[in-house]
Amino acid sequence: MSTSPVNIACLGGGHGLFQTLLAARQCDPANISAIVTVADDGGSSGRLRRELDIIPPGDLRMALAALSRNDDNGTLWAKTLQHRFGGTGALAGHAVGNLMIAGLAEVLGDMQAALDKVAELTDSYGRVLPMVNRPLSIEAEVAGLDDDPRIIRSVRGQVAVATTPGQVRRVHLKPNDPQANPRALQAINESDIITIGPGSWFSSVLPHMLVPQIVDAISRSKALRVLVLNLSVEPGETSGFSVERHLHVLAQHAPKLQVDRVVIDRNLDLAGGERSHVQRASKQLGAEVVFADVCMVTDDGLELNRHDPAKLASVLDSMYSEWVAAQATQGTAAQ
Amino acid sequence: MSTSPVNIACLGGGHGLFQTLLAARQCDPANISAIVTVADDGGSSGRLRRELDIIPPGDLRMALAALSRNDDNGTLWAKTLQHRFGGTGALAGHAVGNLMIAGLAEVLGDMQAALDKVAELTDSYGRVLPMVNRPLSIEAEVAGLDDDPRIIRSVRGQVAVATTPGQVRRVHLKPNDPQANPRALQAINESDIITIGPGSWFSSVLPHMLVPQIVDAISRSKALRVLVLNLSVEPGETSGFSVERHLHVLAQHAPKLQVDRVVIDRNLDLAGGERSHVQRASKQLGAEVVFADVCMVTDDGLELNRHDPAKLASVLDSMYSEWVAAQATQGTAAQ
Repeated sequence: MSTSPVNIACLGGGHGLFQTLLAARQCDPANISAIVTVADDGGSSGRLRRELDIIPPGDLRMALAALSRNDDNGTLWAKTLQHRFGGTGALAGHAVGNLMIAGLAEVLGDMQAALDKVAELTDSYGRVLPMVNRPLSIEAEVAGLDDDPRIIRSVRGQVAVATTPGQVRRVHLKPNDPQANPRALQAINESDIITIGPGSWFSSVLPHMLVPQIVDAISRSKALRVLVLNLSVEPGETSGFSVERHLHVLAQHAPKLQVDRVVIDRNLDLAGGERSHVQRASKQLGAEVVFADVCMVTDDGLELNRHDPAKLASVLDSMYSEWVAAQATQGTAAQ
Repeated sequence: MSTSPVNIACLGGGHGLFQTLLAARQCDPANISAIVTVADDGGSSGRLRRELDIIPPGDLRMALAALSRNDDNGTLWAKTLQHRFGGTGALAGHAVGNLMIAGLAEVLGDMQAALDKVAELTDSYGRVLPMVNRPLSIEAEVAGLDDDPRIIRSVRGQVAVATTPGQVRRVHLKPNDPQANPRALQAINESDIITIGPGSWFSSVLPHMLVPQIVDAISRSKALRVLVLNLSVEPGETSGFSVERHLHVLAQHAPKLQVDRVVIDRNLDLAGGERSHVQRASKQLGAEVVFADVCMVTDDGLELNRHDPAKLASVLDSMYSEWVAAQATQGTAAQ
């Protein structure tokens, strides 16, 4: 009996999703769906969003690059999608792929059609789906910006939230409770494995948890649902957050969320009783903790703040095999 | 015996070359080579040229769009290449194709490789070749800018030359006598038909005549060499120029140029003795004049300032058949 997953859906954004998609490719599924945040307002994406009133394309572009085939054609297009114009002119910093996606979206009148066309170009391993079919904003309640720590201020915009020196208490999407992209829901419903994260917690991971239909679809899913935690705390939005705190924030924003596994890098230095705190917090989400070696290490032994796709793929594969076996046993027991 | 041309090389730039390439496609040759000016300094091309120090991509992009296959994929990419961002932001006016060509050229480190990649995307009917492998400038000697008509001023840049209210006497390329793109020379050498024009005379047609190797290659060629004149005088650079004057200007800038046919729209209103003047001027270039119906006419009977691709193709086809027959007769006579 083969235990290869047929469909994998990966939720996230930015560099974290990029690495997860590289891992998903190595699991050799028939289909990969990248379900991507649409709340970026910085850099090339932010400029395009403001100038052309489109879904910010940067996270979508990165996902397309991650899913590009490894042959000459796919590699060239992946490189071109990611290539940024240099210099000091009006184009400086724009990624070529963002401009291509924006142009195709204007011509086709449809962002999904534009993404699918680029996927055709790169002979993509999967499909890239915005989590919501319109640009969104992030707004956060932030403490610690005033002398009086009880004062909570509202900070708006992904860049502002990601870089605030205060402590983010809670984030909202604007507009609130947006409709999920039906194709994203379908991809979740048809998946054998669903991954959430890693990534900037408030800007790439939490936004998905603020779309009620997405949380519902994940929680009702029979797939193996895996939350992949970050390797280290980021400066800015989650500075000083413990691993446990990351899980609490998720549960606080999406109380109905249920997942099956929480993957934590086994080299992460969990002080004192934190290991058991993390296990307790995971249980709240319905999940077992899996400590595994998932960190990318250079030839010189330097640990990078990046998941190693091969290691993560291997963890996903073995978790999925065990999962399928356990389901089979349960099935037998039930008969 | 089939008399279809196998290879067609079309020299020009801008909208004129676009129409000629559409006509060349209808002649059903095995190969089309678009040999394109590289001296534009206006609009999207000019901005990219200044910002990124590349060959201005606009004329190259238009040629690629003209040569895109007629199926869904080719049509979509042609439309996307030509699509311009609107609005009032930093991207306003940029053609998506210009940005794609610029990005690919930076990634590949080679403009020709970038053009060939876009041609692959559009399943192109031919290849697009810059006439020279570097950006060039146009500089013109212009009279009539001062009260004293004998004063000649130097006007620099394609836009400035194309819009000068003075009379352009002579144009130069900067740098002078540039090396031709070897691939363009090869395409000329291997052609059965070579077309020059139509197009903005000083900015799209004459630049080719200022590259000595290109003029040599055309003049030595055994192909049917066809100069396609404009349908009407343009405002600006050739305002007030007679048809004869267009031919004189060409001969003046490229004294060695030899062509075989000069195609003039038969509806062009040639006043007085101008018809015989035009024939005399054509003879100087070694050419016979062909008056033919080549003008695009709307369903309402409105004559557009644009060559009709089907009509031009039909003229090229019949001229080529006669040419081949005449060559065969000469060959027999020589035996």
